[in-house]
Amino acid sequence: TVEYPQGEQSADKGAYRHFMLKEIHEQPAVMQRTLEGRLQENAVSLEAFGKGAAECFGKVTNVQIVACGTSFNAGLVAKYWLEALAGISCQVEVASEFRYRDTVTPKDCLLVCISQSGETADTLAALRKANSGDYLATLAVCNVPTSSLVREADLHLLAQAGPEIGVASTKAFTTQLICLLLLCLALGRARGHLDNAVEAELVAELRRLPARVGEVLAMEKKIALLAERFAEKHHCLFVGRGTQYPVALEGALKLKEISYIHAEAYPAGELKHGPLALVDADMPVIAVAPNNELLEKLKSNLQEVRARGGELVVFADAHSGLESSEGVSVLTLPAIHDGLTPVLYTVPLQLLAYHVAVHKGTDVDQPRNLAKSVTVE
Amino acid sequence: TVEYPQGEQSADKGAYRHFMLKEIHEQPAVMQRTLEGRLQENAVSLEAFGKGAAECFGKVTNVQIVACGTSFNAGLVAKYWLEALAGISCQVEVASEFRYRDTVTPKDCLLVCISQSGETADTLAALRKANSGDYLATLAVCNVPTSSLVREADLHLLAQAGPEIGVASTKAFTTQLICLLLLCLALGRARGHLDNAVEAELVAELRRLPARVGEVLAMEKKIALLAERFAEKHHCLFVGRGTQYPVALEGALKLKEISYIHAEAYPAGELKHGPLALVDADMPVIAVAPNNELLEKLKSNLQEVRARGGELVVFADAHSGLESSEGVSVLTLPAIHDGLTPVLYTVPLQLLAYHVAVHKGTDVDQPRNLAKSVTVE
Repeated sequence: TVEYPQGEQSADKGAYRHFMLKEIHEQPAVMQRTLEGRLQENAVSLEAFGKGAAECFGKVTNVQIVACGTSFNAGLVAKYWLEALAGISCQVEVASEFRYRDTVTPKDCLLVCISQSGETADTLAALRKANSGDYLATLAVCNVPTSSLVREADLHLLAQAGPEIGVASTKAFTTQLICLLLLCLALGRARGHLDNAVEAELVAELRRLPARVGEVLAMEKKIALLAERFAEKHHCLFVGRGTQYPVALEGALKLKEISYIHAEAYPAGELKHGPLALVDADMPVIAVAPNNELLEKLKSNLQEVRARGGELVVFADAHSGLESSEGVSVLTLPAIHDGLTPVLYTVPLQLLAYHVAVHKGTDVDQPRNLAKSVTVE
Repeated sequence: TVEYPQGEQSADKGAYRHFMLKEIHEQPAVMQRTLEGRLQENAVSLEAFGKGAAECFGKVTNVQIVACGTSFNAGLVAKYWLEALAGISCQVEVASEFRYRDTVTPKDCLLVCISQSGETADTLAALRKANSGDYLATLAVCNVPTSSLVREADLHLLAQAGPEIGVASTKAFTTQLICLLLLCLALGRARGHLDNAVEAELVAELRRLPARVGEVLAMEKKIALLAERFAEKHHCLFVGRGTQYPVALEGALKLKEISYIHAEAYPAGELKHGPLALVDADMPVIAVAPNNELLEKLKSNLQEVRARGGELVVFADAHSGLESSEGVSVLTLPAIHDGLTPVLYTVPLQLLAYHVAVHKGTDVDQPRNLAKSVTVE
C-alpha cells in the first residue's frame, strides 16, 4: 500500500520502500515550498532572485544555460519557455562540452548554471570560466544553499526540494523546472515582453500545480501495472515534441539510470530520420502528448510506430482524442495549461521508471556505476 | 576483394556489393570535387558562395543552423568550428522543433539550412518560416542543385557528392562537413577573426584530406574483422568530446539505420550522469579520440567503462598513447590537423556500420522503415 505524507523531507524513508519513491511523492509539498514567498497576486516576485536581479534582468537579451544530466534536461525546457514567454534567445549546453571549447558569448547574456548539489565539477568549472568572461551576470539554480555554485554565482534561486537521497533525481528536477519558469516569467516582465494577463494565468496555474501533481501520483497503481510489461524489455524509445522533448529525455534517463533498460529519447519529428529503423515488436515507444497544437503531428508519428509493430504507451490528457487499443495504452493525465505540462508529464515517467526497476529488482536508490553528485570530472 | 575506383559517381554499383559501400569509397573523389574552384592559394574563395555573400558575411554575428538527421549532426560540428574559428555565436536545432516553436532571432543572424536532397519537408518549412522573418540572409548547404532549398535560399553552397542512393547518408555527410568548414573559414575572414596563417594551414590540410581519407579506407579489412564481433550485439554507446561528439552521434545513427543495433551517442563527460549505468559486458563502447587536448579527459572516461566490464573500441591516432589490450581494441588513424578530424573519424564509423549490417544480413541500401528523403512531415 502506498501512502502520501506531505511536508516530510527528512533523510528517512518513512513508510516508503525506497527514497526515490518517497521523493517522487514529496513533489506536491516541495513544489509548494519552492513557490512560497515567490509569487505576488498575479506575478512573480523579483525579490526572490536577490539584490541586483531587477536591474540586471532588464538588460538581458540572451541566456546561456549550462548543466549536466537531469539538470541539462531542465535547461532544455527553459529554452522553449524563455524564447516563447520572454522573447529572449537561449542556448543550452552540456557543461563538460561548454567548459573545454572556445565559446562565443552573445551580447547582454545571463549565464544560468543548474545543479542539484551545486558541486557538479563540470558545471562549477563552467561557472568559473564564465565569471572571468563577459557575461552580464551569472545565476545558479540549485538545491543546496551552502553549495559552491550558490556562493560563486552573482545571483541564485534555490529549488526547495529538501535533501534528495535517491541517485536518480526526481523532486530536484521538477523544482528546478519551477525555478526556471519563475525566472522566465521574471525576465519576460523585465524585458516588457510578457503580457500581464499571460503572467497572471501562469501564476494561477502554478498555484494549482501541486494539486494536479497529486492527481498524477494517484495514478500510481495503473502505472505500476504498465511497468510489469516493461520489466522484460531491453530497449525503449521516448518521444515528444516541443517542451515535451526534454521531458522525453528525462523519462529515458530515469529508465536508464535505475532499470538499466536502454532507453533513448528523440524529438518525434526525427523518428523518420533514423530511429524508426529500430522500431519493431521489441522496441516499445513511450510518447508524452499533451493536448496542444503539436498533437496532430505527434499522432501521425505514432501511427508510423504502430504500423511497424511497436507497442505504444501514450501519456495524454482527456481532450487528446486518443484511446487505448490493441498495442496502444493511453494513460490520461489531468488537463493543465500548456506552460506547465513539462512538470506534470515528468511525474508519470518517474513512476514508470521506479516500478520497472522494482520489478527488475535493481538497487533503485543506488544504481550501479552512478554517484549522486558528480564532483569529479 | 575491395577496389577503390575514383571519380565514379553514377547510379550504378560498379564492382561494389552495395551502393553504400560504393559511396563510402567515393569520398576521396567527391571531397576533391567539393573543394574544386573554392580554394585560393592560402584561403577560401568567397565567390564560391555566390553574389552578395562577401557583403553579407561581414555583418554576420550569429548563425542559426537548422537540419534533420545526418545533416543535423553536420550542423553540430559546424557550431564548434564557427565559435572557435570565426568567433560567431551559433545555435543548431532540429528542423521539426524549430519550425513549430516561438523562436527568437538573434541580431545579424545568418540562417543555414542543411539537407542532402534539399527537399526535406521540415527543413524547407524552417527556411520558409525564416524567409518571412528577420534574418540577414539564408544559406542552403545541399547536394542537389535543382532542389527547392537551393532555389528558395538567398545563398547556397553545393556539396558535390553526386547522386547518393544508399538511404544511410555517407558521402553527403562528409561533403556537407567540408562545405561547412569552408563557410566557417569564409565567415572568420569576413569578420576579421581568423588569422591568415590559421586559414592557410587549414586550406593546406583540406587539400591533403582526400588522401588521408583514402588511407582510412585502406583500413577496411581491419574494420570488417572488428565488425564481426558487433553483429551479435544489441546495444552500443558511442562517445566523443568536442567536435567528436557529433561524430559519435553520426556513428551511432549509421549503426542504428542499417544494422538495427540500438546505438546511442553521448558527449563523454555525460557518461557519469546516467548512461554509465547501462555499461556492462553486453554494452560495447566506441570512442573517437583524436590526439588533442581532450584526450586525457577521454582516457579517464574510458577507464570507467573498462572498469565496468564494457568492451572498448577506440579510434585514435598514433600519438595518442593508446594501445590494444584485453577488451580494448585501438584502431590507429593517420594524424591530421585537429580541425579536420570530424571528417576523418567519420569514415571508419561508416565502414563499421556497413560491415556490421552485412554480417547481420540486413538490406543495407534500403533499411526497413526508412526513406532516402523525408519529403513529408
